[in-house]
Amino acid sequence: MSVRFAVLGAGRIGQVHAQAIAATDGADLKAIADPIAQAAEAAQARFGGDIRDIDTILAADDVDALVICTPTDTHADLIERGARAGKAIFCEKPIDLNLMRVRACLDVVAQTKAILMLGFNRRYDPDFMALKAAVDTGQVGAVEMVTITSRDPGAPPAEYIKRSGGIFRDMTIHDFDIARWMLEEEVQTVQAAASVLVDPQIGALGDYDSVNVILRTASGKQATITNSRRATYGYDQRIEVHGSKGSALVENVHTARIQVATADGFARPPLLDFFMTRYLDAYAAEIAEMVDAMTARRAPRTGGHDGLMALALAEAALRSVETGQAVAVADVLADAA
Amino acid sequence: MSVRFAVLGAGRIGQVHAQAIAATDGADLKAIADPIAQAAEAAQARFGGDIRDIDTILAADDVDALVICTPTDTHADLIERGARAGKAIFCEKPIDLNLMRVRACLDVVAQTKAILMLGFNRRYDPDFMALKAAVDTGQVGAVEMVTITSRDPGAPPAEYIKRSGGIFRDMTIHDFDIARWMLEEEVQTVQAAASVLVDPQIGALGDYDSVNVILRTASGKQATITNSRRATYGYDQRIEVHGSKGSALVENVHTARIQVATADGFARPPLLDFFMTRYLDAYAAEIAEMVDAMTARRAPRTGGHDGLMALALAEAALRSVETGQAVAVADVLADAA
Amino acid sequence: MSVRFAVLGAGRIGQVHAQAIAATDGADLKAIADPIAQAAEAAQARFGGDIRDIDTILAADDVDALVICTPTDTHADLIERGARAGKAIFCEKPIDLNLMRVRACLDVVAQTKAILMLGFNRRYDPDFMALKAAVDTGQVGAVEMVTITSRDPGAPPAEYIKRSGGIFRDMTIHDFDIARWMLEEEVQTVQAAASVLVDPQIGALGDYDSVNVILRTASGKQATITNSRRATYGYDQRIEVHGSKGSALVENVHTARIQVATADGFARPPLLDFFMTRYLDAYAAEIAEMVDAMTARRAPRTGGHDGLMALALAEAALRSVETGQAVAVADVLADAA
Amino acid sequence: MSVRFAVLGAGRIGQVHAQAIAATDGADLKAIADPIAQAAEAAQARFGGDIRDIDTILAADDVDALVICTPTDTHADLIERGARAGKAIFCEKPIDLNLMRVRACLDVVAQTKAILMLGFNRRYDPDFMALKAAVDTGQVGAVEMVTITSRDPGAPPAEYIKRSGGIFRDMTIHDFDIARWMLEEEVQTVQAAASVLVDPQIGALGDYDSVNVILRTASGKQATITNSRRATYGYDQRIEVHGSKGSALVENVHTARIQVATADGFARPPLLDFFMTRYLDAYAAEIAEMVDAMTARRAPRTGGHDGLMALALAEAALRSVETGQAVAVADVLADAA
Repeated sequence: MSVRFAVLGAGRIGQVHAQAIAATDGADLKAIADPIAQAAEAAQARFGGDIRDIDTILAADDVDALVICTPTDTHADLIERGARAGKAIFCEKPIDLNLMRVRACLDVVAQTKAILMLGFNRRYDPDFMALKAAVDTGQVGAVEMVTITSRDPGAPPAEYIKRSGGIFRDMTIHDFDIARWMLEEEVQTVQAAASVLVDPQIGALGDYDSVNVILRTASGKQATITNSRRATYGYDQRIEVHGSKGSALVENVHTARIQVATADGFARPPLLDFFMTRYLDAYAAEIAEMVDAMTARRAPRTGGHDGLMALALAEAALRSVETGQAVAVADVLADAA
Repeated sequence: MSVRFAVLGAGRIGQVHAQAIAATDGADLKAIADPIAQAAEAAQARFGGDIRDIDTILAADDVDALVICTPTDTHADLIERGARAGKAIFCEKPIDLNLMRVRACLDVVAQTKAILMLGFNRRYDPDFMALKAAVDTGQVGAVEMVTITSRDPGAPPAEYIKRSGGIFRDMTIHDFDIARWMLEEEVQTVQAAASVLVDPQIGALGDYDSVNVILRTASGKQATITNSRRATYGYDQRIEVHGSKGSALVENVHTARIQVATADGFARPPLLDFFMTRYLDAYAAEIAEMVDAMTARRAPRTGGHDGLMALALAEAALRSVETGQAVAVADVLADAA
Repeated sequence: MSVRFAVLGAGRIGQVHAQAIAATDGADLKAIADPIAQAAEAAQARFGGDIRDIDTILAADDVDALVICTPTDTHADLIERGARAGKAIFCEKPIDLNLMRVRACLDVVAQTKAILMLGFNRRYDPDFMALKAAVDTGQVGAVEMVTITSRDPGAPPAEYIKRSGGIFRDMTIHDFDIARWMLEEEVQTVQAAASVLVDPQIGALGDYDSVNVILRTASGKQATITNSRRATYGYDQRIEVHGSKGSALVENVHTARIQVATADGFARPPLLDFFMTRYLDAYAAEIAEMVDAMTARRAPRTGGHDGLMALALAEAALRSVETGQAVAVADVLADAA
Repeated sequence: MSVRFAVLGAGRIGQVHAQAIAATDGADLKAIADPIAQAAEAAQARFGGDIRDIDTILAADDVDALVICTPTDTHADLIERGARAGKAIFCEKPIDLNLMRVRACLDVVAQTKAILMLGFNRRYDPDFMALKAAVDTGQVGAVEMVTITSRDPGAPPAEYIKRSGGIFRDMTIHDFDIARWMLEEEVQTVQAAASVLVDPQIGALGDYDSVNVILRTASGKQATITNSRRATYGYDQRIEVHGSKGSALVENVHTARIQVATADGFARPPLLDFFMTRYLDAYAAEIAEMVDAMTARRAPRTGGHDGLMALALAEAALRSVETGQAVAVADVLADAA
């Protein structure tokens, strides 16, 4: 029997998930909700399903799971309402920009025993999964150091930046999650440096565009994250895991596998420069994971705790930039208790 | 208005095309035909369309185009019948193993002015197309030498070999087509060497498993093709185009973009080892090309003449192996006139 | 007219420099000094020159330049004595482990106007120089972020560790110098994390074997350094410079340029695993630079200030590890004034 | 005791060998001969040794080995004179452009039991040797197909072409030798195609600039060689060995190990573009091999038979171009008997 989905929010990312649902065996797109009728209709025309409002969806018997793709400030409310309505929930990150709100939301999820999956899409990328499999099978031995390079082709518009919660909560959050995944141990302290090198307007909004972070676990494992809002050569997404027996890394994805040699040298094309193209397979794998987790009645690979901890690391990084100090994650969590 | 397709033959490759039709905007899968009811039903269950027999399809008003995926010895007949019934035709290579039969078939196509597209899937691979675009935009200057390496992960079963027409007509034929595409000039002479190094059973069937070919055009451009029925590391598919200003090449496709470094060295995973996985995007692009060609009422990028010439090169290569001589393609074609 | 050299200290690194002098046009090896007669004689047998004691060398008319390869705790004294004796001086890093002592020594150098070159060998590596040239010619635009990965094949013996001044002063010091070179702006603050993951004995000695550092300049440029005392796959030496127009990086040096593909995947051999092999060309280029600087009566590319600043960064990193705080380099320098 | 060398011919390649002798432990440069006094003096100034005429050298007691770097048409005579004078001989390829003359010369060598080493420098390249070692240790299993790509940065001057014996005897001869080395089995038949695509002047001289060759052994192993007198991106030297268990290849040598990524893509610098730079290490290894072979009183790794067979393959290739036929190497050798 198929899992019956409703997609809340028919914007760009909502369409990506609707398409993945339509293409996934064992998944049915039952309903689409969006306050903008045109958006809902366009998605319906391409991927099917009914157009319904959210209240109707929450009350419906023929919807098993919600896919929350609405604006960030609605996530926590919708998760809670969905959980109470007995729905399984897939939610785009973050749950909320406020740690306390996230904790409260997760309490509801725990009380209702709802299945909650967080959309940390990178964990579902086939290459990243191959890297993790290499690490898990012991190919690099005991993990010691993780190095993450993550650069966007360009900065988002000022309107986006304003509501994003800042680079750590918006961009680095993915890398915090990857670091936790690869380290397989919670981070104890966070050190971070931040600059405005790409666009002064970002600085004017109180945000940064170029940051470096060091994470350290209790046992001394470390991870570094390098972020920039500018990479002329495309969407730069690299991970390296160094261990007692060796190192493993993921390579970037070029637009084509060709090489041209001339008197000027050897040239390969730039990288894919859009996260939706780069992580196309990952988005499809997310829906498959959701279906599989629901069918097997197990927790999805990326759940509420992952959302909470990535946000706590973001919070800690920001404090480190502001104070110059290594910030204990426990302190950040305690402040939000 | 969508192009309405009927797929003849619901075997492995028929399903690939049915899936592509189902996923392509502007293409509708109307009908599936297969003498084995179970095969037709399985395809229908996955991709839709009616199950009909071939006569019904040929007579139907709601079918614009045939996709011929039946056994090779039925291709020419079905092309002719389809052409006479006013259908556009997509046919898997080869049209026939016999050059004379191919010529007769193409005469019918010409008389009926039918649109005929040959399934030279590699020409639709995104990486190969990027290579061709680099060549066409002059990045390597005037093309001088083309080097094609094409190795299968393993030999097909004896039953397949028996009916395949031999390695040149079955395997090298793709490389002959690529060579013609990259050279942009017809081949004048063919020299070839062949051996049985992989499997003596292949030799017992009168075929070869390891061949090298040199093609030469009238202006002196050359192409070489290296084929083997064995490559332990996966499906090896490389093309290099050397010209007056430089060289361009296509790289192989690994199963993942990771690298693991240990005391033994640096390791990357093997190549994709199945042609359907390797050329998944190409199969989808073929249907898109067919739809586009029909919509624009233009000849598809790979037509009957390409099928004829690739087969003539295969015939010439076989003669060269048998005689040790450079064989003129004109002589091969004249003998089939 | 050739530059006439005396090599002080005929150990491993002294022999490397003696060999470079013997092979360099415009350089003559006049004298070798070593308290261990056997060592001096062995070097003389291979590379020529007289065996003399240091006093004789300092007083000699036929020696223009000293190459100081003696133990670290003698460097500052010998630099001062050489400077006062009117010799040009090439000294292996570091000048001293104590910042105050370094400053005092550099004062003498300044007063005597002696030419002093510091042996930061990596700046003379042809690949690193090609990277710097790419940066200097504007290929990556304005430099924003530098990423340095530097891992030793294995940890040195405990005896060495004890006298080394710790990982920051012994190993990271090279990377601090590279960072300064690539940033082209002095570092303002240093953040560092350190662990013992490779060898508990290193921890017992009060040192670390796995560290990460973030450097930040006044204008907000940043550099990160990742160090480990263990890399099973060889001597890992990578630099990446990210800027407004792109990124440039240096690749590692494998023991051979071959690749073997089997059913297990594609394998390349490990990296060169010894710094003297890896930087063989760099050592030769150092002597050439010394000769060239002396001939042109100009300051060498790596001088006393570079030695001072790299040591100050090491000091700052250590303080950051101890306090968890971002440490201002100005404070470190002020404390040593 | 050192091997005492005399270098005959102080031109470009003579200087390369003189330098290698000067830098090799166990080798002494005793004498240099050149009809042009200036050339001999220049070499002497750089590498030492006396200037003597050839007769004096042949009669000298203090010369153990000759290094013949004179024009090709003097090689056979000098080998014979050297052999009769009891000298060991290192000779640049080819022994002679005429197969019959080569055979006569080798008869003298055999009668005198002289040590003769042929300067097939590529066999001494560290990367090529690493490839051969991988093959010899069974990493690719039984060798089946060898693919050699060899392209010069540019064509030599017309004067050189005239005396070169044509592209097969001058350029492909190196690749014939490599093919024999990798196949480990003598070639039975040769097929070749040739064109003039680079420079019409080369055609006017009766030579070719773009050739492809297929070699086939009795057991069916095959090798292909692709040659061009033009490669804008540098000196292109690749070998691939395909076998029952996998494939191994040698990669090209770039001028630096850097990569620059910009909006235009990822760029690596061109290849080394001069054979003396590309094979610098190989030339040094040749002299070491000569010294080692003489010391151990064994045949050098590349001897007279290798010179004979490579020339026979060149002759066969030329005949194949002229006749279009696969040419038996046995026939070529028989004609020269």
